[in-house]
Amino acid sequence: MSSITGAILVGAEERQGSGNGFEAVDPSSGKALSPRFAEADAHDVADACALAAAAFPAFRDLPPEDRAAFLERIADAIAATGEELIDRAMSETGLPRARLEGERGRTVGQLRLFAIVVREGGWMDVTIDPAMPDRQPLPRPDLRRVNMGVGPVAVFGASNFPLAFSVAGGDTASALAAGCPVVVKGHPAHPGTGEIVARIIRQAVADSGLPAGVFSYLPGTTNALGGALVADPRIKSVGFTGSRGGGLALVKIANARPEPIPVFAEMSSINPVILFPAAAQARGAALGTAFVASLTQGAGQFCTNPGLVIALANSDLAAFEGAAVEALAKAPNQHMLTPGIHNAFQTGVTALEGHAAVETLAKGPVGDGINQASGAIFTADADAFAADAALSHEVFGSSSIIVRAPDIDAVASLVSGLEGQLTATLLFDEEDEPLVAPLIPLLAEKAGRILANGWPTGVEVSHAMVHGGPFPATSDTRTTSVGTLAIQRFLRPVCYQNLPDRLLPTALRNDNPCKVARRVDGTMQLA
Amino acid sequence: MSSITGAILVGAEERQGSGNGFEAVDPSSGKALSPRFAEADAHDVADACALAAAAFPAFRDLPPEDRAAFLERIADAIAATGEELIDRAMSETGLPRARLEGERGRTVGQLRLFAIVVREGGWMDVTIDPAMPDRQPLPRPDLRRVNMGVGPVAVFGASNFPLAFSVAGGDTASALAAGCPVVVKGHPAHPGTGEIVARIIRQAVADSGLPAGVFSYLPGTTNALGGALVADPRIKSVGFTGSRGGGLALVKIANARPEPIPVFAEMSSINPVILFPAAAQARGAALGTAFVASLTQGAGQFCTNPGLVIALANSDLAAFEGAAVEALAKAPNQHMLTPGIHNAFQTGVTALEGHAAVETLAKGPVGDGINQASGAIFTADADAFAADAALSHEVFGSSSIIVRAPDIDAVASLVSGLEGQLTATLLFDEEDEPLVAPLIPLLAEKAGRILANGWPTGVEVSHAMVHGGPFPATSDTRTTSVGTLAIQRFLRPVCYQNLPDRLLPTALRNDNPCKVARRVDGTMQLA
Repeated sequence: MSSITGAILVGAEERQGSGNGFEAVDPSSGKALSPRFAEADAHDVADACALAAAAFPAFRDLPPEDRAAFLERIADAIAATGEELIDRAMSETGLPRARLEGERGRTVGQLRLFAIVVREGGWMDVTIDPAMPDRQPLPRPDLRRVNMGVGPVAVFGASNFPLAFSVAGGDTASALAAGCPVVVKGHPAHPGTGEIVARIIRQAVADSGLPAGVFSYLPGTTNALGGALVADPRIKSVGFTGSRGGGLALVKIANARPEPIPVFAEMSSINPVILFPAAAQARGAALGTAFVASLTQGAGQFCTNPGLVIALANSDLAAFEGAAVEALAKAPNQHMLTPGIHNAFQTGVTALEGHAAVETLAKGPVGDGINQASGAIFTADADAFAADAALSHEVFGSSSIIVRAPDIDAVASLVSGLEGQLTATLLFDEEDEPLVAPLIPLLAEKAGRILANGWPTGVEVSHAMVHGGPFPATSDTRTTSVGTLAIQRFLRPVCYQNLPDRLLPTALRNDNPCKVARRVDGTMQLA
Repeated sequence: MSSITGAILVGAEERQGSGNGFEAVDPSSGKALSPRFAEADAHDVADACALAAAAFPAFRDLPPEDRAAFLERIADAIAATGEELIDRAMSETGLPRARLEGERGRTVGQLRLFAIVVREGGWMDVTIDPAMPDRQPLPRPDLRRVNMGVGPVAVFGASNFPLAFSVAGGDTASALAAGCPVVVKGHPAHPGTGEIVARIIRQAVADSGLPAGVFSYLPGTTNALGGALVADPRIKSVGFTGSRGGGLALVKIANARPEPIPVFAEMSSINPVILFPAAAQARGAALGTAFVASLTQGAGQFCTNPGLVIALANSDLAAFEGAAVEALAKAPNQHMLTPGIHNAFQTGVTALEGHAAVETLAKGPVGDGINQASGAIFTADADAFAADAALSHEVFGSSSIIVRAPDIDAVASLVSGLEGQLTATLLFDEEDEPLVAPLIPLLAEKAGRILANGWPTGVEVSHAMVHGGPFPATSDTRTTSVGTLAIQRFLRPVCYQNLPDRLLPTALRNDNPCKVARRVDGTMQLA
């Protein structure tokens, strides 16, 4: 694979690193993949951050059209990668071709959507309070506000989306859209995939005539590397998708800086699904089958995997459970993404199997080979589930607990006891609605997205999406890591008072050269 | 004063506290003022927070019109307070009548402005991505996003604005506007003023038929009280205006919670003013006089006090400095707000007087009586200023350093070395603009508001205002504590996927019953 060399990309410079480096591993065989990858160190971090800081003013102040074209250049090049990218990603993740081709499409679409967003300009939130020179008792000055990038952003890609949540994923796309240079800490589970994409971004930086520091790529395996990146004083914000432990470690480092910075960590969620009686009666079996399809998709390695079903216990639940058991028995064999994820999954499942208050309803078939995921469905009573917080901790993979609640009050009580979630799903028919309606406000306190009669896996990249939620789903419930609102994470407002028009940032000038919607004296005016 | 009893107001309940309590002190005389105030404790915190959490769902989901009317009811009652409020505030703060009457007007205006904001509905950021059932390869679900309140908010008022940044100040107004119940930790420097306003809010809660837990008022003097409030698991966000030490202490407590929460702390700023040569030549003396007016206003006890002047050193600077010295000699005697603030100011000024690299240019007259502020203006060379970070720490009060820079590069270098600021001010004439223009982007990285040819004191409450900035000006540079954008601090987005129209939050329904502007499929549509 000619384009993978194992290099560290510090702006335009390629470095080979000083140590022995590391290799990617094929999780389906356990075999190492060539080449060896350099291990970036604190020196590389410092240089990448210095370049990013130097690139920031020019990149931040780039006309929106130019920044949009830059994003589209990246998108076009990723779309044109052909087999090499997909083949390498398959080798490094064990994910099937169709899934990775779909993920590439999603990555490309995400970049193009942010290009549209950048051009449209709503992200700037241009707000103008014209001067009132004759106001009593004091005149009002001319005040104009616009959003601008916060500065260089550190991005930590996810293991489970080697494209869409990785080097050119949602965090990078939204940070670049906001005008922030990006330094990516490459995920060691897919370093070759990462490097291919990193080289594309680097080329787009050069082809767009931007300062090289707009993008750097630091492969590595150590926590020290990520820690040095978050601690670097030139980094002003962090995007992270991964485990609760990993996210909290970065938050701690960020809070301990002389200048603390925000970490947008998307971490942990069990995505409760609530099954209502009429739906269970009318289509319990079909829902049970669909539940297992969502549960086992991608070996359950999704942030939005349905790890908890709360069902009103009655005789109709048997159809749901029976169909789920049957579907799990037929679930395809899949290997998990890494030995570490597989081990953590096995540990979590074993703990549930041995839990006195938990019954094992079904386990899926165990395939041949290494890192094989065997799905697991458990059941527990509402009281038992509520009594042990460990039962509501995420087991990353195809593991779910069906909790039987005696009545709707017990359901509400279970919901009240949950930690913050990315999603909450309601499975109901029309006659369930009197039970459903009062739960919706309660769920809105707990989750960033509430679904009716669907499944939480499958996150649309759009304007209205929220892939976020209260702690520990994320470290900041006020935003999202998927969808166009994600750009707001990397922006801050600046107000200009009484500046002559010619000295104002372009978007704030009287003749509205950026042609953006503006709020003038409190009234929204379209472009 | 019939309406001041010294009580703790836990929702509708009045409590007298168990300990000895505390008294307010008149800073102009040092005399204690009656009555004694109860000292709220952890028990009161827990009860107030429990009530706030219970009130939250109903208050959050109140129709915008009802919440706006509630804010206006508070505003009307504060506007109608007459002499009692102003007299008590004068006794507790030593601030002059006109200033406090103006501040009352500002407080009332702020509440009314948030009522307008609540009705207008832009704060909800309603965003709708309609379903695309025929999209390939997968249909798009119907996705609708709306902002809603985060939950109960703890508010810590400021010493220097007993009305506008206190019990019914900007933090309270924006949190209530967002649909969040508020628990105020009353500032011990003006407990009677606080109680009068707290009783008004409590009455407005009752008169509006809202749950009593929408508002509680906890007077007290201890750090333990504030700590318990921030640590309470039902509190979801914190608004604070005060010292860097105080703000950081609350941030630390908030970060250490099992569920960390944001603290919006407005803390520390020296508000650099940059004087350019042509302006210095044309009107140096007038600017020097105006500088001292801004510096000594309110005994310098403003977050936006101009604590640093960076001037290009040339012969014209003498006119500016000479006029400043003359003006400071005529500055009115003023007592500071509290003995603590006065002591800290004296300590800061004494340290600068004794600093080897700092020259004392002028000190103002010392009046008779206690807690008297004597303004101070110092000078230093650019290198000396840059060499000692202590010189750029805020001295709260009328203290400022004029730093003489040899050339524009030295000015840029000084700016680059500054910490985050609330404001940066440019004093220039048209022929200075070639020097001014390149500094503006640099200043935009450092400050939340950039002013041309004005003074940073005097913060307009409007849509475009940013009273915020990078750390340590605030703990979160992405927002503001003054102006309508402040509401965003207390909101979070929630997405609804495929819900039947009748089960959606009102603002998201097809027929737009709240009559708000909405972004539909990426395009903004006015109401």
